[in-house]
Amino acid sequence: MLKLPSGYSVYTTSASIKKPGRKDIGLIFSDRPAVYSGVFTKNVIKAAPVNICIKRLKDKKNIRLVMVNSGNANACTGDDGYKDSIYLLKELSKKFNVNEDECLPLSTGVIGVRLPVDRMVSSFANLVLDEPEEFAKAIMTTDTFPKYAYKEILIDGKMVTITGFAKGSGMIHPNMATMLGFILTDASISMKISQKILKSVADNSFNKISVDGDMSTNDSLILLSNGASDVEINSKNYDIFYRAILEIAKELSYMIVKDGEGATKVVKIIVNNAYSVSDADKIARTIANSLLVKTALFGNDPNWGRIVASIGYSGALKIDEKRIKIIINDILVFKDGKPTDFDKVMLSNSMKSKENIIIVDMGIGIFNTEFITCDLSYDYVKINAEYTT
Amino acid sequence: MLKLPSGYSVYTTSASIKKPGRKDIGLIFSDRPAVYSGVFTKNVIKAAPVNICIKRLKDKKNIRLVMVNSGNANACTGDDGYKDSIYLLKELSKKFNVNEDECLPLSTGVIGVRLPVDRMVSSFANLVLDEPEEFAKAIMTTDTFPKYAYKEILIDGKMVTITGFAKGSGMIHPNMATMLGFILTDASISMKISQKILKSVADNSFNKISVDGDMSTNDSLILLSNGASDVEINSKNYDIFYRAILEIAKELSYMIVKDGEGATKVVKIIVNNAYSVSDADKIARTIANSLLVKTALFGNDPNWGRIVASIGYSGALKIDEKRIKIIINDILVFKDGKPTDFDKVMLSNSMKSKENIIIVDMGIGIFNTEFITCDLSYDYVKINAEYTT
Repeated sequence: MLKLPSGYSVYTTSASIKKPGRKDIGLIFSDRPAVYSGVFTKNVIKAAPVNICIKRLKDKKNIRLVMVNSGNANACTGDDGYKDSIYLLKELSKKFNVNEDECLPLSTGVIGVRLPVDRMVSSFANLVLDEPEEFAKAIMTTDTFPKYAYKEILIDGKMVTITGFAKGSGMIHPNMATMLGFILTDASISMKISQKILKSVADNSFNKISVDGDMSTNDSLILLSNGASDVEINSKNYDIFYRAILEIAKELSYMIVKDGEGATKVVKIIVNNAYSVSDADKIARTIANSLLVKTALFGNDPNWGRIVASIGYSGALKIDEKRIKIIINDILVFKDGKPTDFDKVMLSNSMKSKENIIIVDMGIGIFNTEFITCDLSYDYVKINAEYTT
Repeated sequence: MLKLPSGYSVYTTSASIKKPGRKDIGLIFSDRPAVYSGVFTKNVIKAAPVNICIKRLKDKKNIRLVMVNSGNANACTGDDGYKDSIYLLKELSKKFNVNEDECLPLSTGVIGVRLPVDRMVSSFANLVLDEPEEFAKAIMTTDTFPKYAYKEILIDGKMVTITGFAKGSGMIHPNMATMLGFILTDASISMKISQKILKSVADNSFNKISVDGDMSTNDSLILLSNGASDVEINSKNYDIFYRAILEIAKELSYMIVKDGEGATKVVKIIVNNAYSVSDADKIARTIANSLLVKTALFGNDPNWGRIVASIGYSGALKIDEKRIKIIINDILVFKDGKPTDFDKVMLSNSMKSKENIIIVDMGIGIFNTEFITCDLSYDYVKINAEYTT
């Protein structure tokens, strides 16, 4: 069963934002001020709640309450949308006896529609203390399963708990599109270290996944640390704590790809021995985003030529066709600038698995990286052709 | 009926490269040396024939013969593939009594498979002088219709003919992926002006279209000018000639998008009043490549939010959400940072048309551009999931 770190509780209610009667509001409450850090969409056009979260970060606020709604992104709603989110926080802060500027709003769903603030405020009367799994469900949109992970680790002889939630299945891109993520811990941590950890964790988890290459106006990943475990993170225990947070983030980001709109399989793209960090990143990202690679994966088609073509236009600085090796599910398919004599039928059969691994060895340097992507199926088109209509 | 410029003829034959009995080799022959210029894929990994074409360009060769085959791209075939193309040219050059280095090879089709050179050489015995339309058919791969255009213009009192051919329907990207284009003219033109015209024409036609954002190893656009009309292009008649070439190139590139794999409609993306040329280009390109925009177009879904999100992550330097206007098929849908009160059903109905126009007015500068893209349908996935298997 999913556990929350000490001092946190979650609440849910239904404001019938998109579907009547559906639980669509979830709250995270901390019984004491939690140190807060966040990383947000790089999209220039940001939703109102994202702008509020960024303001709180700049103002170095500690956080007591996070309000999340699904069904409506409150994006492209102008100044009115900003006021709507602030108004909701004001109402909630009264109810929970906290300050308005200790509250964060996050929204996900359709773009360009005003939030039904009256219905939402009315729904606050029905907020109930709920199981953490129910919070994960309340924030889902096109997700087909709730996404959460948790971990208890012993640090300095005391137990620290880390619990993560995420939502997202479409508009997913290395830069974290339409993705909401929350990592809660009862460790005690400075604001500076918190932000440093979160930035690095995001770059190595949520920023290395891809579903469709689009980037939303609402992406947010938030880390709250309320210190209730009485364990302080310092230079000695930093590594173990960092690794635990990273593992949670990787688990959550993996789930997002697995739940990629219409995806039938998850594909790990491993790039080894690239000339630079940037080259490794560009190559993995380009393969992970290639529609031709993604449709070939859907069709169990060992079309290594599309992988080679992607490497070629990735923008990587150093590429020597003759040094590249490509291995799909343990079978070497390309070497010395040409295909090997591999068994196409056997490889195609192995590609039917729910997990595929493509290794690209550039043979030209020492830098490695790993991306997680998924295939592109008929259902991706179906889901996205029919979203608002 | 399609006409060739003076001095050119085309030949075809079948080497059963991929499908038995299919016409899959087309030749362009000029009865005198033609000035040659070309622009090629920016993919670092280039097919053997592309490398040969680039070598001829560097060596400033005039051209007498162009050999094109469909069914096999001769890409990722190592040094052997290079030798294969050279061997074929040698055989052909004997037959047509020209020098081997006056011949260009171009290939399109599957990657990583050696050309069936013996079958191809045998097929040369059956080469027949053919109608120009048949050349256009012989170079098709997943194309559903042959692509050609021609134009006669009066320059300095004499008739100049320009005839263009193209093939391509998948792997199409602003950088001209798996696209072959040929523009033939009987004007007389210097090598320098020829290359200048072709580069500018490509940037304003083939480099402004997008089907799936992938870029092939084989893209090539070639201009041949054999001077048979006795009209010399100079600074006085340059403009009229340039415009005619551009029009042919635009017609051909439009056809490629129209024939985009699985496409049900063509969509013009017009970006006006951007801050810079580069911003206009980035914005148009990002919208044209967004899977979410393309699937919404397929579903006749006036989902302007996805257009706004694309603008936001386009990487354009200056974006002011409140100054952006978005017009879909003459209906203003977004203004002052929020949606207008447009009639969704009416707009959705208008989107069922085979031609859609999206205008994005950035309201922040004076630079305009235009891209041509298509929607993304189930059939794109089907075609590309089943290509090699």
